[in-house]
Amino acid sequence: MPPSFEAAKDTRDNTAHKEGRRAKPGQLLSSTARLLHVHDPFPSPIRRERGGAAEEAMGDSAATDAPPSSRFGRICVFCGSNAGNRAVFGDAALELGQGLVSRGIELVYGGGSIGLMGLIAQTVLDGGCRVLGVIPKALMPLEISGASVGEVKVVSDMHERKAEMARQADAFIALPGGYGTMEELLEMITWSQLGIHDKPIGLLNVDGYYDSLLALFDKGAAEGFIKSDCRQIIVSAPTAHELLTKMERYTRSHQEVAPRTSWEMSELGYGKTPEGS
Amino acid sequence: MPPSFEAAKDTRDNTAHKEGRRAKPGQLLSSTARLLHVHDPFPSPIRRERGGAAEEAMGDSAATDAPPSSRFGRICVFCGSNAGNRAVFGDAALELGQGLVSRGIELVYGGGSIGLMGLIAQTVLDGGCRVLGVIPKALMPLEISGASVGEVKVVSDMHERKAEMARQADAFIALPGGYGTMEELLEMITWSQLGIHDKPIGLLNVDGYYDSLLALFDKGAAEGFIKSDCRQIIVSAPTAHELLTKMERYTRSHQEVAPRTSWEMSELGYGKTPEGS
Repeated sequence: MPPSFEAAKDTRDNTAHKEGRRAKPGQLLSSTARLLHVHDPFPSPIRRERGGAAEEAMGDSAATDAPPSSRFGRICVFCGSNAGNRAVFGDAALELGQGLVSRGIELVYGGGSIGLMGLIAQTVLDGGCRVLGVIPKALMPLEISGASVGEVKVVSDMHERKAEMARQADAFIALPGGYGTMEELLEMITWSQLGIHDKPIGLLNVDGYYDSLLALFDKGAAEGFIKSDCRQIIVSAPTAHELLTKMERYTRSHQEVAPRTSWEMSELGYGKTPEGS
Repeated sequence: MPPSFEAAKDTRDNTAHKEGRRAKPGQLLSSTARLLHVHDPFPSPIRRERGGAAEEAMGDSAATDAPPSSRFGRICVFCGSNAGNRAVFGDAALELGQGLVSRGIELVYGGGSIGLMGLIAQTVLDGGCRVLGVIPKALMPLEISGASVGEVKVVSDMHERKAEMARQADAFIALPGGYGTMEELLEMITWSQLGIHDKPIGLLNVDGYYDSLLALFDKGAAEGFIKSDCRQIIVSAPTAHELLTKMERYTRSHQEVAPRTSWEMSELGYGKTPEGS
């Protein structure tokens, strides 16, 4: 079991500034303007390096005592810059962060140091995995309180933030959050439906927070606005462990609307001659 | 009362191709590549021309027999490229289109000629108001069946589509739709919350289609992920008339997260030295 949110906050208050912030935030943050056009702060394409081994390991990871390996090199987590009113949300962020660490998965996220954002980022960083935050310049004074967590890429607007997060990640997970979190999740679902990507998308439905969203998707399918096979795009579970396990097994079952090769998404690293996935 | 969806479809099948398509779709569509960087297919900034008169008219429009004037020059409508399984959805699209026409409001939309998209676009065009569709090149073979409706601007990706629609419109309305519609709506809410724009955002909650989405927003506010004043960003009503009436009266009541002047949104027509609203 993960430590509780409150306990974790106490620990961080006492020790995080001495021990926790292992990255050199100033390294990337110190010259904001120069970073606006940086393309890849992670020099090694971990996903591609791991591809083969990860696929081999998926079938038998339960048969060993070693930490489960993963098909994912990096996962993008969408979540609030608030922590919510109840400890259950912070606990879920901690648990998800620890789940990523146990599988050796790096974190891509919105770059804030507050709320659930800051909590999961610090957890992953403390666990020894790399953390990349992508934040619009206008939100830096609002979502970064004190030092930043991990490496931070500063971008100019919300579209650039989302495109960069999508490009960097092999999968997406939404923790509880507000409008922005819901929108980021829905955009990645839309892009999967369209065929822009085929990366797994998970919903961490903490204590039923997203029940109404799932009901909305059911309504959309029942009324003819969402095709039934596209209703399966989202992978949902109440705990991080269940969610990650389901996402490792995800394969696309829907018919893409337009082939990926028809999209000119230079932001995502592919255009008329796409590469990778 | 508007004609029913089924009756309208019959009429369109018989006459639309002779009488309805008043625009010259070939004019803009014929050279797709050239259009990728067109900036404004509407040469006259109607919103600005109308600004003063619209504000004066808002208070007393109910006291005259003349069609109500509007503070809005153009409204962007998000909706499905499907028509839904029940006639009530098509009826709502027709009613909304007629509501725009009666107020002299131009339409900005996703550019498709099928589903609710095509229905509202044809209704507005037939009513004598201009229609601008913004469609990514990859979706053209899928969402434009036969001739296009009104003027069409072809863009390269989904982000460019949304930014262009946001730039062109003075307000946004979501009709029932699937993932893409929900996401477009949520992005405009997010941008309003952040302070990127302060344009009204309406939800046409046809026969309770979006009840679950409203319940999700309530949940977000109750759990501390959406500030209570930001819960008021979305204006919701079951009919087009009620919705447009409410939107005419909308004023922002929430505190923006970051001032608009801090956003470098060149796509939206403003950067470090913003102009207009």
